[in-house]
Amino acid sequence: MLGLKMATDPRWVNLAEKTIEDILIDHAYCEQKAATTCISLIITYPEREGIVEKLTPIVAEEWGHFQMVLRELEKRGYRLGEMRKDEYVIQLQKRSKKGGSKTDQLVEKLLICGLIEARSCERFKLLSEGISDDSLKEFYKQLMISEAGHYRLFLDLARNFWSPEAVKQRFDELLRLEADILKNLDIRGDRVH
Amino acid sequence: MLGLKMATDPRWVNLAEKTIEDILIDHAYCEQKAATTCISLIITYPEREGIVEKLTPIVAEEWGHFQMVLRELEKRGYRLGEMRKDEYVIQLQKRSKKGGSKTDQLVEKLLICGLIEARSCERFKLLSEGISDDSLKEFYKQLMISEAGHYRLFLDLARNFWSPEAVKQRFDELLRLEADILKNLDIRGDRVH
Repeated sequence: MLGLKMATDPRWVNLAEKTIEDILIDHAYCEQKAATTCISLIITYPEREGIVEKLTPIVAEEWGHFQMVLRELEKRGYRLGEMRKDEYVIQLQKRSKKGGSKTDQLVEKLLICGLIEARSCERFKLLSEGISDDSLKEFYKQLMISEAGHYRLFLDLARNFWSPEAVKQRFDELLRLEADILKNLDIRGDRVH
Repeated sequence: MLGLKMATDPRWVNLAEKTIEDILIDHAYCEQKAATTCISLIITYPEREGIVEKLTPIVAEEWGHFQMVLRELEKRGYRLGEMRKDEYVIQLQKRSKKGGSKTDQLVEKLLICGLIEARSCERFKLLSEGISDDSLKEFYKQLMISEAGHYRLFLDLARNFWSPEAVKQRFDELLRLEADILKNLDIRGDRVH
């Protein structure tokens, strides 16, 4: 699915269902981090083809999702708690390429964004299929579709700056690296990644 | 107006009209910074009364304004350029109180946000009255109304944590400090503040 090199352990969705408050809070922060990252790309690369035009609506969409997750929390009598350390994203950033031209750095950031969207998409699919709460099933189905769209958008944007072959090659490397990171993280039901 | 201790030099709007591309770009970044600051308040103080509930829709609104300013740039054949150093905001932050409890720091940040909204409101009023482009006049009139609402919201939020008298006293001090900062900044037509 979306090129991911390792499927999520199927037990994850059962753990997640037992700690749905934690999952929702973690998910809200995933949307916030996605919005913040897109804002950061816009202000760092406003002159690059497609960055402002394509990412400005994505910020609005991610923030809309943040609001939707808040409503799901509220419906269940929960509140947004503190942000947890996101070991998955920290590891991805630690192992991403730092050097190269400003263009290379932009492409690396876009591919990492695409990668996180792909994994979120897979996890939301699991939630939409595996949990018993019908309203949340539908909620995660909708979000899964949206994440798949964002995944494609980030890869399309990367191809504005690098050849399709170069993008594919680096994305494949990142997919392998991501699988390796996940293999070494505990499977936890209280976070999306 | 809104308690400001010094009115903007009336020549500012004539300068601004001559460099409307720069004003629009600077204005877009003001909206972006407002959105980013609200996100930062949400993730730093999610547990504080009203912060998540009141600021989440403000982020969406500020980002909507960012999109609106982009459309005004586009209509005129301009693009979002690089962000300029915002000397006004840098000075405000440099001279804001850093110590105190976490609550005191939150109140200080809310009051600084309120202050910036108040000044933006005054400047947008000047633009809405003083420039000759009818569509931009209306645009700035709408945004002026919105900034006035945000000014009130930030001060209301501050009163969730401090007494009305304490909020008034500190906000008065900040208003004097802000007037002092503006007095010492060049009057420039290429930026909102």
